[in-house]
Amino acid sequence: MDRAVNPAWDQRARRRRVRIERAAAAQPGGRRVAHADAVALLEAVLEPGDRVCLEGNNQKQADFLAAALTRVDPERVHDLHLVQSVLALPEHLDVFESGVASRLDFSFSGPQGSRLAQLVAERRIQIGAIHTYLELFARYFVDLTPQVALIAAQSADAAGNLYTGPNTEDTPAIVEATAFSGGIVIAQVNEIVDAVPRVDVPADWVDFVVAAPTSNVIEPLFTRDPAQISEIQVLMAMMAIKGIYAEYGVQRLNHGIGFDTAAIELLLPTYAESLGLRGKICKHWALNPHPALIPAIEAGWVESIHSFGSELGMEDYIRARSDVFFTGADGSLRSNRAFCQAAGHYACDLFIGSTLQIDLAGNSSTATLGRITGFGGAPNMGADARGRRHPSPAWLKAGAEARQGLAGARGTPRGQKLVVQMVETFREHMQPAFVETLDAWTLAEQAGMALPPIMIYGDDVTHVLTEEGIANLLLCRDDEERAQAIRGVAGYTAVGLARDRRAVENLRDRGVIRRPQDLGIDVRDATRNLLAARSVRDLVRASGGLYKPPKRFRNW
Amino acid sequence: MDRAVNPAWDQRARRRRVRIERAAAAQPGGRRVAHADAVALLEAVLEPGDRVCLEGNNQKQADFLAAALTRVDPERVHDLHLVQSVLALPEHLDVFESGVASRLDFSFSGPQGSRLAQLVAERRIQIGAIHTYLELFARYFVDLTPQVALIAAQSADAAGNLYTGPNTEDTPAIVEATAFSGGIVIAQVNEIVDAVPRVDVPADWVDFVVAAPTSNVIEPLFTRDPAQISEIQVLMAMMAIKGIYAEYGVQRLNHGIGFDTAAIELLLPTYAESLGLRGKICKHWALNPHPALIPAIEAGWVESIHSFGSELGMEDYIRARSDVFFTGADGSLRSNRAFCQAAGHYACDLFIGSTLQIDLAGNSSTATLGRITGFGGAPNMGADARGRRHPSPAWLKAGAEARQGLAGARGTPRGQKLVVQMVETFREHMQPAFVETLDAWTLAEQAGMALPPIMIYGDDVTHVLTEEGIANLLLCRDDEERAQAIRGVAGYTAVGLARDRRAVENLRDRGVIRRPQDLGIDVRDATRNLLAARSVRDLVRASGGLYKPPKRFRNW
Repeated sequence: MDRAVNPAWDQRARRRRVRIERAAAAQPGGRRVAHADAVALLEAVLEPGDRVCLEGNNQKQADFLAAALTRVDPERVHDLHLVQSVLALPEHLDVFESGVASRLDFSFSGPQGSRLAQLVAERRIQIGAIHTYLELFARYFVDLTPQVALIAAQSADAAGNLYTGPNTEDTPAIVEATAFSGGIVIAQVNEIVDAVPRVDVPADWVDFVVAAPTSNVIEPLFTRDPAQISEIQVLMAMMAIKGIYAEYGVQRLNHGIGFDTAAIELLLPTYAESLGLRGKICKHWALNPHPALIPAIEAGWVESIHSFGSELGMEDYIRARSDVFFTGADGSLRSNRAFCQAAGHYACDLFIGSTLQIDLAGNSSTATLGRITGFGGAPNMGADARGRRHPSPAWLKAGAEARQGLAGARGTPRGQKLVVQMVETFREHMQPAFVETLDAWTLAEQAGMALPPIMIYGDDVTHVLTEEGIANLLLCRDDEERAQAIRGVAGYTAVGLARDRRAVENLRDRGVIRRPQDLGIDVRDATRNLLAARSVRDLVRASGGLYKPPKRFRNW
Repeated sequence: MDRAVNPAWDQRARRRRVRIERAAAAQPGGRRVAHADAVALLEAVLEPGDRVCLEGNNQKQADFLAAALTRVDPERVHDLHLVQSVLALPEHLDVFESGVASRLDFSFSGPQGSRLAQLVAERRIQIGAIHTYLELFARYFVDLTPQVALIAAQSADAAGNLYTGPNTEDTPAIVEATAFSGGIVIAQVNEIVDAVPRVDVPADWVDFVVAAPTSNVIEPLFTRDPAQISEIQVLMAMMAIKGIYAEYGVQRLNHGIGFDTAAIELLLPTYAESLGLRGKICKHWALNPHPALIPAIEAGWVESIHSFGSELGMEDYIRARSDVFFTGADGSLRSNRAFCQAAGHYACDLFIGSTLQIDLAGNSSTATLGRITGFGGAPNMGADARGRRHPSPAWLKAGAEARQGLAGARGTPRGQKLVVQMVETFREHMQPAFVETLDAWTLAEQAGMALPPIMIYGDDVTHVLTEEGIANLLLCRDDEERAQAIRGVAGYTAVGLARDRRAVENLRDRGVIRRPQDLGIDVRDATRNLLAARSVRDLVRASGGLYKPPKRFRNW
């Protein structure tokens, strides 16, 4: 054995001690750091090339630490490798402009997508890869382990125990990976308190606590004003409920964000109730606390909701409905993106979401030219969970449909997850949702990606739902059938107009394509009157005043 | 809104208070319960029909609480629904014989497999489903949330903070699901201490702590004595390294348990080193601390290992090699089955394991008649992670091979996980590993299962490796080719003898089948001399005396 190869085996622990010593020398506070010393702390702790998780969640942001990071001296701290799930704030990109950071692995960039593409084009950011959330967390424990984590919590006690508040989100995964690999964990908190309401992160996983001068930013991303739901969306929601949820008996599910799925949520206590479906569908959810689900919860539809994050304004409602939500002994929500993504992947029968583009193979993507946004949780929840082994009626029925008539490896019986793409044939500005070729292909070429950025692969999509009807791709037996099934619900888009009418009628006869009338749905019934709430105010009323929407959603 | 449907929304919190009050009345210790009062505590806390997670991990067992549960009065506590990953102890089944429990959802039963089948046949256990680990944890947050968790830890402080020791395993997932849903968490600990070495579970997630009279059982399941590795296994390991690991450049991987994979681990610093592969393969692992990996670690092959659990005897070695393992500030391992399974699913390029039976579609199963054992983590790590979006050379190459010449949805480019089944053509007692029909089909019929219990589906398997060669199923284009590729490495089994010799030779010409000589491997070189350690004693020596194997593995 050549023992000389690696003379010391505790380099990580040594490096950690050196960082801690430098931090002690740079600021007098010890574990509790004054906010004025935050930049000095970061300069003391960070080393060039460090992998850093600057906590950017879908909602909660370590914004004070993000701002501090933009102010470190790039001579001392440079070429950091950021490994964070969401790039939400301008500061998340500012550090690349200044050279403090140069490499990035992430999941979602949302509003920063255009600027990110710009910085990549200018070669100021080198993107490792774009991940689905759980995949990025998984790599925290394998080859993207952070050396330093900069996180956000609601409060800390003197010992350093953290209370995250309802937006626990990514924090547990980030901290565990960092604290148990000789890394340094720095938390910004809104307040230091005598006793935290509950411990979300134990003190001995945390090295430094900074009381930030302002509370961390949390975005309400899951509130959809029912007033903006159209009658076409009501119609599509009716089809989803009657043609998919009822058909398969879907009990455990996840909804993507948007007005399409908000319409489904608001139709449960009205339309679905009238179909006698209460107790037969939609009992268990992997979902953020969507205000649009309040009427269904109040009507006794929902048994449980586990959440990735939280939603501003829902705090009191959640506290008062603790039978349904995962809450701590203190009464407030404990969310957890890692576990909720695992739940979405392995414990849900259905994922339904929207997209910007679908091609004739059923591949979908929200990637558009000039933007690099990533897909967050959709690839994980919109992929068939091939490791799943527990049956449910919904999963077995989908699997049986998919495998009918097949032999060999592909024909071996198993279940399948229902993955529904729900889109109007034309989106804003009359852009068609159906295309011959996804923009993702051009984008991959432009950005030098190894693969086109596809959100959900066509062979994982089971149903495409538009205002024209439902295409059940499980029943398609070859590429041509699949393409015609998609054309057959693509309406007046070029893709839809190019359908082979006879083939489409044949698919309709076989039940592969179903129109509203095939489902016994009268299009004239699809009115906003079916919505259990028609405004945010209605949601507040349905909650008995417990839901307190942020100002931007109040117009009364 | 029909508010009468659910008049109270804090039933769970109320029920929790009632349980806590009953517990206080039943035993005087408050939060810290004397071990003599454990049965009284369980009788006070539990209610008929409760979902209970009695912590049974792969290694660590809450054995004292398991024994206490067998002693509760079945008149008071009955028909529990156990939701635990592993049934390892006789007590885990005793509770079904007495009627204390009647329903079960689990992942793995190992040594209890035969008795479990017997109890199912006698209708004394109703099995909900068999899961892969991460799937079961996922359901803890959706529809199998425990009302009571009975867990095991190394120590607790007066406040109730828990230190799990290196075998953290399932504990964090179980406790989080229970503590944040109004459930009750009861921990058995080996000792109460002034200060725990580190906090693995915060005190306010734990309701009761019982100091057990004896330390909890932990099984060393991952130790394989190199003395028992055969020359055939050395040959197969050489093929794996040269024909798969080197070919694809596999950097991140998981090994199943067994002598086959132990041989690979022991060939890294010798055979693989001679091929110049150090740094080019096997840097990052999702793996328990296998003693067989010590020589490779010492020779500088391994950058990181994240673990599901731990391994007895490896404590000091892990502490002294903290650069490689995930350890706490106290120096001991923090394992975490949930995160490590996520890592195995999403962050690894390759899973290699063994099986008892493979059919001609490549479906494999360890299920045999008269036993119900489950598959633990294999379905999760042996399934293509279709939600994965980050590329690596290994993943891209496998994906490109799989999709060559395909069009439409199936042909859309993406990567694929390498999933290797490594088996000798005959296993113990000359049972063929290759069969026309898996026993799983008969078992499914006998036990009334919805689907045959297949461990890994054929269309997820990329390579079958036997002493006769490697069949690369990625390159097969139809069922018949796949079947012949499998027959072509099935040796003298009936399946192997029934090969179409011309078809097999054709597959060999195309590189679908590769024999040792095709890989430039001289079978005569496959001797035990290639093993970096040929005995447990050698492993101890390689570790510089830091590895301290349990007695059963010492013969000196």
